[in-house]
Amino acid sequence: MRTRLAFLAAALLALAGPALADEGLWTFDHLPLPALQQRYGFTPTREWIEHVQRASVNFGGGSGAFVSPDGLVLTNHHVAMGQLAKLSTPAHDFLKDGFYARTAVAELPCPDLELKVLWSMEDVTARVNAAIAPGAGVEVQNGQRKAALSRIVAEDTKKTGLKCETVELYNGGEYWLYRYRTYKDVRLVCAPEEQAAFYGGDLDNFSYPRHDLDFAFFRVYDHGAPVHPEHWLRWSARGPREDELVLVAGHPGRTSRTRTVAQFEYERDVERPLRIGMQEKRAAAYRAYAAQGAEQARQARSALRGLENNLKRERGFLEIIRDPAFLAHQRAEEAALRARVARDPKLQAAYGAAWDRIVDAEAQLRTQGRARVLRELGRVSRLVDIANGIVRQTAELAKPNEKRFREYQDANLPSLRFMLFSPAPIYPAMEEYVLTAHLQAALDSLGAGDPFVKAALGDRAPGEVVHELIAGTRLADVAERKRLLDGGRKAVEASVDPLVVWARGLDGPYREQRRWFEDHVEGVEAIEGANITRARFALDGHNAYPDATGTLRLSYGRTAGYTQLTTDVPWHTTFYGLYDRALSFGNRSPFDLPKRIEEAKDKVDLSTSLDFVCTADIVGGNSGSPVIDRDGEYVGLVFDGNIQSFLWTFGYSEAQSRCVAVDSRAIVEALRRFYGMDALADELTAPKK
Amino acid sequence: MRTRLAFLAAALLALAGPALADEGLWTFDHLPLPALQQRYGFTPTREWIEHVQRASVNFGGGSGAFVSPDGLVLTNHHVAMGQLAKLSTPAHDFLKDGFYARTAVAELPCPDLELKVLWSMEDVTARVNAAIAPGAGVEVQNGQRKAALSRIVAEDTKKTGLKCETVELYNGGEYWLYRYRTYKDVRLVCAPEEQAAFYGGDLDNFSYPRHDLDFAFFRVYDHGAPVHPEHWLRWSARGPREDELVLVAGHPGRTSRTRTVAQFEYERDVERPLRIGMQEKRAAAYRAYAAQGAEQARQARSALRGLENNLKRERGFLEIIRDPAFLAHQRAEEAALRARVARDPKLQAAYGAAWDRIVDAEAQLRTQGRARVLRELGRVSRLVDIANGIVRQTAELAKPNEKRFREYQDANLPSLRFMLFSPAPIYPAMEEYVLTAHLQAALDSLGAGDPFVKAALGDRAPGEVVHELIAGTRLADVAERKRLLDGGRKAVEASVDPLVVWARGLDGPYREQRRWFEDHVEGVEAIEGANITRARFALDGHNAYPDATGTLRLSYGRTAGYTQLTTDVPWHTTFYGLYDRALSFGNRSPFDLPKRIEEAKDKVDLSTSLDFVCTADIVGGNSGSPVIDRDGEYVGLVFDGNIQSFLWTFGYSEAQSRCVAVDSRAIVEALRRFYGMDALADELTAPKK
Repeated sequence: MRTRLAFLAAALLALAGPALADEGLWTFDHLPLPALQQRYGFTPTREWIEHVQRASVNFGGGSGAFVSPDGLVLTNHHVAMGQLAKLSTPAHDFLKDGFYARTAVAELPCPDLELKVLWSMEDVTARVNAAIAPGAGVEVQNGQRKAALSRIVAEDTKKTGLKCETVELYNGGEYWLYRYRTYKDVRLVCAPEEQAAFYGGDLDNFSYPRHDLDFAFFRVYDHGAPVHPEHWLRWSARGPREDELVLVAGHPGRTSRTRTVAQFEYERDVERPLRIGMQEKRAAAYRAYAAQGAEQARQARSALRGLENNLKRERGFLEIIRDPAFLAHQRAEEAALRARVARDPKLQAAYGAAWDRIVDAEAQLRTQGRARVLRELGRVSRLVDIANGIVRQTAELAKPNEKRFREYQDANLPSLRFMLFSPAPIYPAMEEYVLTAHLQAALDSLGAGDPFVKAALGDRAPGEVVHELIAGTRLADVAERKRLLDGGRKAVEASVDPLVVWARGLDGPYREQRRWFEDHVEGVEAIEGANITRARFALDGHNAYPDATGTLRLSYGRTAGYTQLTTDVPWHTTFYGLYDRALSFGNRSPFDLPKRIEEAKDKVDLSTSLDFVCTADIVGGNSGSPVIDRDGEYVGLVFDGNIQSFLWTFGYSEAQSRCVAVDSRAIVEALRRFYGMDALADELTAPKK
Repeated sequence: MRTRLAFLAAALLALAGPALADEGLWTFDHLPLPALQQRYGFTPTREWIEHVQRASVNFGGGSGAFVSPDGLVLTNHHVAMGQLAKLSTPAHDFLKDGFYARTAVAELPCPDLELKVLWSMEDVTARVNAAIAPGAGVEVQNGQRKAALSRIVAEDTKKTGLKCETVELYNGGEYWLYRYRTYKDVRLVCAPEEQAAFYGGDLDNFSYPRHDLDFAFFRVYDHGAPVHPEHWLRWSARGPREDELVLVAGHPGRTSRTRTVAQFEYERDVERPLRIGMQEKRAAAYRAYAAQGAEQARQARSALRGLENNLKRERGFLEIIRDPAFLAHQRAEEAALRARVARDPKLQAAYGAAWDRIVDAEAQLRTQGRARVLRELGRVSRLVDIANGIVRQTAELAKPNEKRFREYQDANLPSLRFMLFSPAPIYPAMEEYVLTAHLQAALDSLGAGDPFVKAALGDRAPGEVVHELIAGTRLADVAERKRLLDGGRKAVEASVDPLVVWARGLDGPYREQRRWFEDHVEGVEAIEGANITRARFALDGHNAYPDATGTLRLSYGRTAGYTQLTTDVPWHTTFYGLYDRALSFGNRSPFDLPKRIEEAKDKVDLSTSLDFVCTADIVGGNSGSPVIDRDGEYVGLVFDGNIQSFLWTFGYSEAQSRCVAVDSRAIVEALRRFYGMDALADELTAPKK
């Protein structure tokens, strides 16, 4: 890996340059209008901004957009992957073979897909800060902060009827209330075969030039009929052109552009290597299970792809933060900022100690960090998540709203129930493999004396414990989950379901650890991060964008290739290139062509633009984002960044880093020539209104 | 450039690895038969080896091969470039538009292309060494060495009637006599348009994946009729397959794999940066001339392309030897070898001082090196080369054969006359531009007091001097050259042609500098280089291949892609890829398609394999080499290395470095579908015997 990504060190040096270019993950309330006007002669109207905001769809970790007046939503195949897997059966593998609803009745309801549209936002920083007692200790302040946030959400939910969430921007420097419209009846309309959507597999993932048809269509329903959204993006027949302004609306997940050096050092030394190790073990367990047969491979496919995607990215991130040039650069930047703060006695008095307090917090975290990661059980096993969810939720609901963990507050309960009661299939044999591997790793690393390990295993072997839990639990049955949740604490405490009993036993250690982390680390990072932000704002004004938080952002840039080694990489590819790549590798996996595409080679217009790149600033979470032109028309579908864009998690560089998207023309050409989805293509290109 | 080639540093580390893999530029008398057998289960017969040797054609700086029983020779378009330019006129630009002889009478005689076929070789090391007095000083030894070589050539030429040349292999560790058949009536048969042959231009040069049709066909005549060579390579209808053994026979120009650290340091600090600077100035002069109009651009095209090609390569080489990791590696290797020599008192006494003597020679060279390069006039102007050639040759011919400069010995005279009397067009206005720029650079760097500058310019301005020389000379007239050469020294001394007078004035400084260099540097490098070779042979046996010397070598390897960044680069490309690349760049230069190819897009079989890569060890000079399979069939035409192959000048690495070739199938498909050259295609695929 080292030699393969050696280019990154060089690219990093470009970060130090002064030209910020097309940088930025901008909130819709605070767009860089002067820069847009100066660079591209474009100033969006208020209507343009609101229209794009309300046409954008949050997929919870991914992005999408309404693209027809009849509730059609377009996202990536890989964002739809989880639902494709959950909708599949041994007889119908929609993930592998694709799905093609040619009539409305054929559209397939998703088991647990909730979509959200950001309807409005409000700055509540002053209200939160007013609730924090200036002189109090961090633990007290953190409690006040969390209570204020809870109150604000509860009040606003009651008032608006929308789903309200608070968002911390600028590392706690600003607090916002985001109000969402939500949709729970979402139906699958069309997805290509995995081999077309994920052409080139893990090798080509995060690579460019690229030849993927990474799209999937859903339709949003309400009361049994398609919704007719007020805002949806018109389809561009002409698609993107080279070197033109494009804009991307989506939900970048997490960036680390304003972290402190101490936080990076912790990530580098503890958190990232450990998470990579755990994910590798989990991937190995899925592979071992998949190796048993075709049906097992089908069951494991979606989880395994998710892990491989994550591992490729995480290994790249780790390589970047391990590059001595990277931390040297961060250190110099931080020292320069601190020196500027120190020159102003008032700033120094108010914020000068913030960095050192974070240093202390990270030092504390180092004492517990490894154990913290190894004890995490989330997203390892669906059954365990369900059991923990029921145990925690019933315990939390016994408290007043404002005292609960954030995720169990009233405003979230409908979404939680929706997920918890998902009828998606569960594969207990697979869960056994993965959970056993996970607990074995925890035992090996933490030892049998660790409180979590003791609670999880006693002194028994992981495989034995896990088999009893999974074989004995009835939580695969949705009715049983309902019975427990609706029965509340009493029902849970009375349950003899081995998995519920087990989850109850783990609840104590979990709460203890979470409390410690929130008081000693999370709270400090939020409060001192806010102080650093205030210092930045005082020195430079409020010109920056906040680090990504999974919430809606607008990026902009231009469609442009780049130079790699000593030649040019083009700004887009064509279907000619797809057939070339397949033949170049003798049509062998992962470069083999799906049968439908192979057979259509004389029907398809080979010169159709397929994928393209642009300089718009994106990171993971932007998958499925619409790429729109200045007229607000849909010209492309973000599905990846190139390998050089790994850098963007830590800072923007325009040298080689690029956002990768499917061309709108390729989607229509594929729908018509490969998939016989002419009605869907017509709905995009010639909508009824 | 630095960031773009940063990968090289990493690749260099691979050099230190133990696996030599497909390494080697092997002389035909000393092939690595055990390695070939072990790695590929292939042991060529003696007949196979002789057949390939005698089917291989030396283009003087390039390579080629006989490919039909009727004297057809195949090489690269860029090897043919000089002849294509010389055959062109303002009305017919064969370099740009290509050339297509559809009948024998249309085949066009080349003005000054001499081809050579290596017929036999003989080791004469013992004879040369016997002539060197063991105790004598380096100057005396060097004289003895040169005299012995002259005698051997003269004797053998008389005896065999072949063109004999001596070759120093292993830095002077071995002396060989190479005997050639030569051909001076060579006719152009077919060459594609430059835009097809050099698709992607300077950007894609030394790049891969690639889409070039870099081929050109000549036919060798004798007494007015095509020759029927005894040895020619059969055409492979099936072409190369992935991951199979291929062999390359050609003439690698120069490698630096066994140079000493002192020699590298001199190259790094003086020679290479200076040559790059001079070439940049020359390229700028050609560009300024070309900017005057279409006809001027046509005249300058071939020289400019040659310079750009050289500059791209030289800048890469300089980057490699400037990489601290590179010299550290060389230093460690040299120290290890010296330590092994030092452990054996006999070896130490005989060869231990060799490295230090080279250190001394390079130190001496540093005092004169800059001036030496700046005073060089070769290949700047054809008229100047002609004038210098006439002045030097007539002076040398007055001496006995054995006392002459090597290049003026009897065995070489026919070739020299052939070149000197070339009827190729000369463009005096262009020569003025380039010669003026060159002399201006010498003046600027060396000052008016330098003996060469004084002799060249007196105290006049370069432009003024050059204009007089070029405007006044009659050497563009071949008859005048003949008159002077046949008139000998007297005629030259009596000439008032300003360019001849000027060349006479430069002859003294030239001879003085050459003598100094041969005695103080070249002789030491040869004699001490030989000592280092003897030490190596004594320690490791005679298992190595010699550094490239522009003479015939056999390399071998397998057709294989490689990993770059985090995905795979395929082993070959197809015509699909050519059309894709053109469209990807909006068909703009240098990625635009020639009209013939654009129009044939529905006629050509797009799935035809176009270019491919293999691990066979090649460097500049291998251009035009045949790639053959184990049956001796012609499967490809070497035309380049990828950018990572720059490394191969200094050492072999299989990680990413690759030889790039045109697939034999692409040549036939292009001849038939693009160029209407069916008869030529038939001659390849269905020869008469």
